[in-house]
Amino acid sequence: MPLRDHPSIVMGHGGGGQLSAELIEHLFVPAFGDGELAELADAAVLDPGGLISFSTDTFVVRPRFFPGGNIGELAVNGTVNDVAMRGALPRYLSVGLILEEGLPLAELGVIVESMAAAAAHAGVTIVTGDTKVVDRGHGDGIFINTTGIGILREGADIRPQRAEPGDVIIVSGNVGDHGMAIMSVREGLEFEASIVSDTAALNHMINDVLDTGTDVHVLRDPTRGGLAASLNEIATAADVGVLIEERAIPVDRTVAAACEILGMDPMYVANEGKVVAFVPAADADRVLDTMRSHREGVNATVIGEVTSTHRGMVAARTPLGSTRVVDMQVGEQLPRIC
Amino acid sequence: MPLRDHPSIVMGHGGGGQLSAELIEHLFVPAFGDGELAELADAAVLDPGGLISFSTDTFVVRPRFFPGGNIGELAVNGTVNDVAMRGALPRYLSVGLILEEGLPLAELGVIVESMAAAAAHAGVTIVTGDTKVVDRGHGDGIFINTTGIGILREGADIRPQRAEPGDVIIVSGNVGDHGMAIMSVREGLEFEASIVSDTAALNHMINDVLDTGTDVHVLRDPTRGGLAASLNEIATAADVGVLIEERAIPVDRTVAAACEILGMDPMYVANEGKVVAFVPAADADRVLDTMRSHREGVNATVIGEVTSTHRGMVAARTPLGSTRVVDMQVGEQLPRIC
Repeated sequence: MPLRDHPSIVMGHGGGGQLSAELIEHLFVPAFGDGELAELADAAVLDPGGLISFSTDTFVVRPRFFPGGNIGELAVNGTVNDVAMRGALPRYLSVGLILEEGLPLAELGVIVESMAAAAAHAGVTIVTGDTKVVDRGHGDGIFINTTGIGILREGADIRPQRAEPGDVIIVSGNVGDHGMAIMSVREGLEFEASIVSDTAALNHMINDVLDTGTDVHVLRDPTRGGLAASLNEIATAADVGVLIEERAIPVDRTVAAACEILGMDPMYVANEGKVVAFVPAADADRVLDTMRSHREGVNATVIGEVTSTHRGMVAARTPLGSTRVVDMQVGEQLPRIC
Repeated sequence: MPLRDHPSIVMGHGGGGQLSAELIEHLFVPAFGDGELAELADAAVLDPGGLISFSTDTFVVRPRFFPGGNIGELAVNGTVNDVAMRGALPRYLSVGLILEEGLPLAELGVIVESMAAAAAHAGVTIVTGDTKVVDRGHGDGIFINTTGIGILREGADIRPQRAEPGDVIIVSGNVGDHGMAIMSVREGLEFEASIVSDTAALNHMINDVLDTGTDVHVLRDPTRGGLAASLNEIATAADVGVLIEERAIPVDRTVAAACEILGMDPMYVANEGKVVAFVPAADADRVLDTMRSHREGVNATVIGEVTSTHRGMVAARTPLGSTRVVDMQVGEQLPRIC
């Protein structure tokens, strides 16, 4: 990158002058393509041609490089997934960067390249962006906001309120990978097998599930707060009960071990490449089959059902046959996990 | 706000658990309304019904409260304006917050209320959002990303590339107010008249200008880098020359004095409630009249024209009759101005 001999971010990269322009010209446009972004207008003009799904997410994960990914691809995948959770095909992303003075440009380059690769894989285009620089000690290297637009599939009506008694609850794979990948790095834990973040775009898999014709009621990606938070939010929104079979929740053996060491419950740990689906019981098998045909869904499995009892609450049947309440955590179990 | 007796932001407000939910329920939903946002889904579903304008901006202004406004209304107005610069009617906003641990909740409340008021004034709805909390010393109170969607007006084709020789260049009012309001606070300067930020939503004024039927070629809000950066970007994008009458640039007397004290040129100072319009000469008068009928445009005036000479460059005729090149600044004149 011919970026004026600055090996690191300086305040001027956020000043709207020549240094800002060079960052756009030599870094962002080459990485993100020469469509709307290269127009360098204040806004991108797009043609959605129908209902849209619109979602925003800001990423402050620490460390910014972790086993299985970095903050850049996490930021693309996270918003792609949120957009897809309404039954939409993600199409466009905006990117808002907050860079801390002193961030090595080489690192920014790697992160931007990862974003470009993740966007290409998910089939979305980064069409507009903004960069701000904050003085040293008032940021943390890089924070990334991504905001996404997707085109709603014809007839899709997928939202937490649609969960209903009789629905089968499916999770698309092992839970807790992302959170424990981050925590094991931070805590310096070492295991025989390394724990790797599950960061992934789920839109292609979800699209195939919807292509089966299943009337999917709810989709949710259990990120911050984990499976427990997502299930509680849905139980509250739809005023239904959720009953989980604790033993059915898929957890990688090493992740389970890490959770035990750190005193955590995998149900509360963040995922970045998993989806929870509420579907009519009759459709459960074809949803499972479709998920399992994707790399992201090979461990998809049924974990429970929606009940008309204990409305607004999540209960889990333990291996011993008793039932416990799965509450929503109060605060933050794993700070800055995404 | 019945926010669990926490007078300040704690890490848990970003954890996706009960504290996060309370922030949404007791602060954001009451302020921003109970439409799509209150659905608490991963994404909002919207019906644009045509071409859209899509823009993102992150705000890191320091201090977060300044004469004439605060970071919250600045964040709403800034993105509303960017969306409007393509000839669109701004409709929807997302809000992404990065809060630093320890931010007083009362301050957050004031900022959120300002955002709600600014959104109502501009006629946009905040439909989706996200909040992250970073540990003390890794942020700076609050950073705000806003991303906006507007509906393109039928037939609007407004972009930097459309500037052409013969176009008249209009600025909607005094330049430099916002930047000097921030700087005079930071530097502890006092003047007889106080300098107040011009932060304002320009969409209603722009809409009225477009209602005149004028084929507006370019609209640009001269924020970071000021008028000089905007004019340079347009000259480059359209490969035309820009010739400015230095004496014609409207500058408030106190702002001019502040600039002199701090050794700054008002042409390079950020504005947050001004627009530069490139219009056919024949339409200049009715554009001026329309702008002047709005509070935000009372000082609208012609500052120059587009030429077929000195392509890609901005020149200014000085009061002495000579001509100088108005270059784009290299780095940052005023750090964290927006």
